[in-house]
Amino acid sequence: MSETPLPLVRTVADLRAQVRAWRAEGLRVGFVPTMGALHEGHLSLVRLALANADRAVASVFVNPTQFGPNEDFDAYPRGEQRDAELLAGAGCHLLYAPTVSEMYPEGYATKVTVARITEPLDGSARPGHFDGVSTVVTKLLLQCGPDVAVFGEKDFQQLQVIRRMVRDLDIPVEVLGAPTARADDGLALSSRNAYLSAAERAVAAKLNFTLRAAIAHLQAGHAVAAVETAAVAALDEAGFDRVDYVEVRDPEDLSRLGPGPLAGPARILAAAVIGRTRLIDNMAV
Amino acid sequence: MSETPLPLVRTVADLRAQVRAWRAEGLRVGFVPTMGALHEGHLSLVRLALANADRAVASVFVNPTQFGPNEDFDAYPRGEQRDAELLAGAGCHLLYAPTVSEMYPEGYATKVTVARITEPLDGSARPGHFDGVSTVVTKLLLQCGPDVAVFGEKDFQQLQVIRRMVRDLDIPVEVLGAPTARADDGLALSSRNAYLSAAERAVAAKLNFTLRAAIAHLQAGHAVAAVETAAVAALDEAGFDRVDYVEVRDPEDLSRLGPGPLAGPARILAAAVIGRTRLIDNMAV
Repeated sequence: MSETPLPLVRTVADLRAQVRAWRAEGLRVGFVPTMGALHEGHLSLVRLALANADRAVASVFVNPTQFGPNEDFDAYPRGEQRDAELLAGAGCHLLYAPTVSEMYPEGYATKVTVARITEPLDGSARPGHFDGVSTVVTKLLLQCGPDVAVFGEKDFQQLQVIRRMVRDLDIPVEVLGAPTARADDGLALSSRNAYLSAAERAVAAKLNFTLRAAIAHLQAGHAVAAVETAAVAALDEAGFDRVDYVEVRDPEDLSRLGPGPLAGPARILAAAVIGRTRLIDNMAV
Repeated sequence: MSETPLPLVRTVADLRAQVRAWRAEGLRVGFVPTMGALHEGHLSLVRLALANADRAVASVFVNPTQFGPNEDFDAYPRGEQRDAELLAGAGCHLLYAPTVSEMYPEGYATKVTVARITEPLDGSARPGHFDGVSTVVTKLLLQCGPDVAVFGEKDFQQLQVIRRMVRDLDIPVEVLGAPTARADDGLALSSRNAYLSAAERAVAAKLNFTLRAAIAHLQAGHAVAAVETAAVAALDEAGFDRVDYVEVRDPEDLSRLGPGPLAGPARILAAAVIGRTRLIDNMAV
């Protein structure tokens, strides 16, 4: 393997030894779990970790258990050397890149599940996805033992599921959400944007545009149900091949709001497919 | 509340503050989770914790989620003052006795499940029981953050489920199993023995007697299936009202052995009911 531009560990034992050494020096540790294929969004998570801790650890692990059987686990982009260079450039101190067998050794049998908040939206569109997420995040947090852990608001339902799980299981860590990094036309940065052709890329921008238009209508007092329906129609019209959902929900527990006009804060969330690429986005209302 | 003979905390925050203070002094912390109604068996766990750590914390929490709807949650014996006195006498340093709402606040939604090893034996006889156990033990371990945690071999399947779960979720703790404490006639000490009438108490002793006889037969080369059937018949004959199981299993993953003679180490496990009392026992073969 070629040399990496920052220290790299592949085992829980080596990760813990480094974190223990930092703790012994009185240093606070921040942690950024990722699936690699890093972009500016991930680097902003590293910077937020460093604003809240003395040392930053990033993990890169493409977790098989959060992909469905017909999803893109095999195709998901991987490039450790480039990820390591980007992390080093953002000031990250350690890369943790475990193997699948380090994470799920033979005989592995345990699952963490979160009820209710995992049911709608991506939980309904991707059965089993959040069980995979909550289990691997529990493991990563307990392997690293950081003071703070940073997750992107881009995966907003995931962030709220993790907050719920960390609170429920008493995992001793502070969870921070980081704002979504976007391209100039509003498209949320995502490793999956790499799948898009030029024509698909132009359609993709309409996802965020449609959410911003929907927010304007909600703020003007339009009914939630009507705004959701209009947004789905707009995405169909814009050229998406399938719209999984556009929904306005409670910003904490993601319970349903509406069907009438909003009475308080909300989050609008959407998922839609172009070609073989599934994109998600969300914004505060 | 009357004064307790050892320090008592009721919140995660107070528990962690004490454990953190001990850690800062370089002391190792041992943890003994219990459901109270303490007896000599529990005290032997505290002593094992103290043989492996500088400070011992015991928790007393009758966990509602590991009782089935027709089980004895409400009747389960409770007596905090007496428990605290016994713990102090065994050298315990801190009692952690959280409320149900401290453990499961409003909105609580997370569950830890362990597959396979939870399916037979008590997993089959008590649906949902081990989900309740694995979830509450994960929480207690993450609340306390001990160096070692001690569980009794009396609940052997529970012990092996916890070992599996701790390994799988990377909970940073060493799990120790403690030998079963027994009355002179072999009956395993249990908080539920308090339910037994004098006549039932005489029958109860036959549970361990039958296991010892079964082990002798296994060691003499008798077939597993025949020994299991004979043991069930012996318990019926002895006056038990219902025999849930007598089974010879792999001592690690509790997979099935037999039906022929044993070729290696095994564990024999049994559960049977007299009147309203369900008793369990197990021994190494």
